[in-house]
Amino acid sequence: MPSAVGLDPSAGPSLCLLLCSREEAEALEKELLEDYRFGWQQLIEIWGHACALAVTKAFPLAALPRKQPTVLVVCGPEKNGAIGLVCARHLRVFVSIPPRRRPLEDGGLGVDAVRQRWGMGRLMGSRPLQVQLINDAYNVVIDAILGADAEPEQVKEPYTGILATLKQIRIPIVSLDVPSGWDVEAGSSEGISPDVLVSLAAPKLCAARFLGRLHFVAGRFLPYDVQKKFELNLPEYPGTECVVSL
Amino acid sequence: MPSAVGLDPSAGPSLCLLLCSREEAEALEKELLEDYRFGWQQLIEIWGHACALAVTKAFPLAALPRKQPTVLVVCGPEKNGAIGLVCARHLRVFVSIPPRRRPLEDGGLGVDAVRQRWGMGRLMGSRPLQVQLINDAYNVVIDAILGADAEPEQVKEPYTGILATLKQIRIPIVSLDVPSGWDVEAGSSEGISPDVLVSLAAPKLCAARFLGRLHFVAGRFLPYDVQKKFELNLPEYPGTECVVSL
Repeated sequence: MPSAVGLDPSAGPSLCLLLCSREEAEALEKELLEDYRFGWQQLIEIWGHACALAVTKAFPLAALPRKQPTVLVVCGPEKNGAIGLVCARHLRVFVSIPPRRRPLEDGGLGVDAVRQRWGMGRLMGSRPLQVQLINDAYNVVIDAILGADAEPEQVKEPYTGILATLKQIRIPIVSLDVPSGWDVEAGSSEGISPDVLVSLAAPKLCAARFLGRLHFVAGRFLPYDVQKKFELNLPEYPGTECVVSL
Repeated sequence: MPSAVGLDPSAGPSLCLLLCSREEAEALEKELLEDYRFGWQQLIEIWGHACALAVTKAFPLAALPRKQPTVLVVCGPEKNGAIGLVCARHLRVFVSIPPRRRPLEDGGLGVDAVRQRWGMGRLMGSRPLQVQLINDAYNVVIDAILGADAEPEQVKEPYTGILATLKQIRIPIVSLDVPSGWDVEAGSSEGISPDVLVSLAAPKLCAARFLGRLHFVAGRFLPYDVQKKFELNLPEYPGTECVVSL
């Protein structure tokens, strides 16, 4: 069992819950998959739904700066990308916008193009992201690119280019679990600066470096014994909510 | 494409949405799985979560007749049983009750015993259900036994015995999709009489025979094109709710 980790209060907002190291986060995920028999599809559905709810809380429809409730979801090739797709599907459903007709392009980010057909909105495929276009057309960008599994020093194209673009945009970014390009433990002083962070299952150590506006945790589904074993000290979730803002 | 089905208003509460025949329901499910690449795990998670939310709406904690928020979830061997297990997991999470320690028995209903470990409440295994015990100990029974796939005339033990017990109990029953023992189209005049029905994706024809208190639909996740193709005419879901009461 991993030990609790002390936090340096000068490192960021103080949190009374455990921030998971890389090792703890991996052990927790392994426990869910192997011991509790959660499936990947299931976890991705749970997290994607929770992220969509967090976005609606952080950016209520009525308060969006643009007339259209546009959200750009940038999906990477692995787990975070899949969660981003599920999140996009739920977001579209929440605002009841039928998908626009557009030929489906090959997902240049390595995302399974078939999965993109889950009734989502406009699919941009591998089109390059332009700072001006993002600033002008969208209310929010969801960073579902790399997440916890990518080591910052191993990030390659097209992700380095995408991250450079996201560092220049003026509209708020929502990052899933670990902001893309950040180290899961050390965070990043030069990377993107999300406005909202949605921690999956439990916050990771890098959350101590998060200086944005809102930090949600999507861990209500965690079995009681897992929460206890990993000493997560998760917050109370109100009513039937699956995310909570810290 | 299946045609819309007219309803006999004398058959039950009038509904302006399409009630699916067996064939339509099967075609819809096939479309979700094959065309939209939903996975079973995903659908079961979506429906189990939606059912748990429907139960909290139909039976608010403060209005439960018993001090303890006990719910008996009777799970069958197939899809409805798996949805029942997910529903039970979410219900326990909503009331923050740690699972009681009890040796895990073999699921006599054919339910994968491993899946029962998803952090649920008390696991009763194949213990026989007793009318008096159910009436005394529980607030609600969730019928997650047979559902749409079972033909009424082919129901065998232990299900015939379980259904006979459920016909005698006095506490309310929540049925998932198709009340157990009912025909998916014709319903049943002699079977169980659920107080609440939760239709999965879209109501089936037998819903016209439902005379209980509340009918929920858990179909918000359906892609826009599927809703259109099957002419489902689904109701508006408020806010970010995933179930709606008709």
